[in-house]
Amino acid sequence: MKLGVGFIGTGIMGAPMALHLIQAGFSLRVWNRSSEKLDPLVAAGAVPCAHANEVAEGVSIVICMLSDGPTCDAILFGREGVVQSMAQGATVVVMSSIAVETTVDQARRAAEFGVHYVDAPVSGGQLGARNATMAIMVGASEGDFISIAQLLSVLGRPVRVGPVGCGQLAKLVNQLIVAGTIAIVSEALLLAERGGASPAIVREALAGGFADSPILRQHGQRMIENDFTPGGPAKWQLKDTRNALSYAQTVGLSLPVASMVDSLFADMITHGDGNLDHSGLIRELRRRNGIAVA
Amino acid sequence: MKLGVGFIGTGIMGAPMALHLIQAGFSLRVWNRSSEKLDPLVAAGAVPCAHANEVAEGVSIVICMLSDGPTCDAILFGREGVVQSMAQGATVVVMSSIAVETTVDQARRAAEFGVHYVDAPVSGGQLGARNATMAIMVGASEGDFISIAQLLSVLGRPVRVGPVGCGQLAKLVNQLIVAGTIAIVSEALLLAERGGASPAIVREALAGGFADSPILRQHGQRMIENDFTPGGPAKWQLKDTRNALSYAQTVGLSLPVASMVDSLFADMITHGDGNLDHSGLIRELRRRNGIAVA
Repeated sequence: MKLGVGFIGTGIMGAPMALHLIQAGFSLRVWNRSSEKLDPLVAAGAVPCAHANEVAEGVSIVICMLSDGPTCDAILFGREGVVQSMAQGATVVVMSSIAVETTVDQARRAAEFGVHYVDAPVSGGQLGARNATMAIMVGASEGDFISIAQLLSVLGRPVRVGPVGCGQLAKLVNQLIVAGTIAIVSEALLLAERGGASPAIVREALAGGFADSPILRQHGQRMIENDFTPGGPAKWQLKDTRNALSYAQTVGLSLPVASMVDSLFADMITHGDGNLDHSGLIRELRRRNGIAVA
Repeated sequence: MKLGVGFIGTGIMGAPMALHLIQAGFSLRVWNRSSEKLDPLVAAGAVPCAHANEVAEGVSIVICMLSDGPTCDAILFGREGVVQSMAQGATVVVMSSIAVETTVDQARRAAEFGVHYVDAPVSGGQLGARNATMAIMVGASEGDFISIAQLLSVLGRPVRVGPVGCGQLAKLVNQLIVAGTIAIVSEALLLAERGGASPAIVREALAGGFADSPILRQHGQRMIENDFTPGGPAKWQLKDTRNALSYAQTVGLSLPVASMVDSLFADMITHGDGNLDHSGLIRELRRRNGIAVA
């Protein structure tokens, strides 16, 4: 018999993930706020649900891939929430990127219904979701990790970082590094340009050295081509750096470089660039230096 | 007949580079301030020189791999300097990392002696020098680049970035990115640790994603193992960020993240860690947060 899985949130990331699970032989019950996004999944064999809590019927695992913490909270724990409809001993896997504190709080509330809770945010973007090559950062008890590792392996490379919350913590670490690297690459390419060198050739000269990275290669390319189609919108990046800095404050840490990067992203969004790819941060640095942006 | 090459400065980087040139069939004349460092090269077939300017005798190319701009200046252009001893039409290749402005000035002075000038700083560290895999960022006229490209290919991957000065500019770009990435990786791993996750496992979870980089892998490892044997000493890193920020000011650019990173390295050195690897910046972030450092 096929293992039944509930899947909530079939957007840019969720849709290709749900499809991989169907193709791997899981029996999926799916829900999305805009129900037309379910159609391709239903065509592939998924059962559509009219209400979110219906995904819980007869399944042992529910995956949540909604866009943010408050939405997750409302759908999982609100009136007619999903978790209260789940079977005792079933597991909810939150793959959205949400605050560490929210994760820990949700796990506590899930336990009140006898439901196991795992946080498993991802990195690798839309392409990673499509190719099932995502980094999956898991916060879970050892037992819960074992029970879902096979399912998560269909979607990418799951690593148990620690108990509940540690997946989100690792994701914050990931996003801080991504945001900081985008910022320093922006400043460095701007220096190259202003100094009269071609940023494209400089990038080529740096390939293979210590300054090389997926950010220099992919996001650097977008900066050079001045093409900021997301990708990862800057407003999501700001949500992540805000979460990271807020969590840092909770644990009594001051992070000077991350704070500076956060303020650059905040200004970028204030200036109307929130829906551009986060590599568009170079536009904000141009503005700060009185250089015209297209 | 073997092509004659003069080589000045056979330290940590220079020695393996000189050896590669000898093995590739160039006839080397070598000089170093501490003459005992010449011994292994002489054993391999190089001609030792008692004074720096003697490397210029009968050679068409002189390579300079001294530690900083003032030292280069003194040896190349001081009393009994190397350049005045070089043949008309010969080429001096400065592979040290020095200020862009110094490079342009040295090129002008070399031209007064009829000597061609190329700047070709490198990235990839000791390991890159030993394995001849260095990124070599070249500032030169097209003709000069063609005349030395074969020789530089023995040492790594030369890319002509633009006219004289552009090699140093690319190196500044490289070092800014390295310094900034070290800083944000330090902050991010500190956040992981303070949040109760193992930085080593978080690093493993991030592998292959957008946050991955040679810095996360190699310098992150040093942070996790608390082993800051250089590698690249922090005091050299500060020299590079200072050069970059000074050059940025010259071309009217303000770089907020680079400035913050520079001030962290300055504090690290003030606190006595200048001879540690630059990944030891995490110690400075610990200090700032009142966390004891070993």
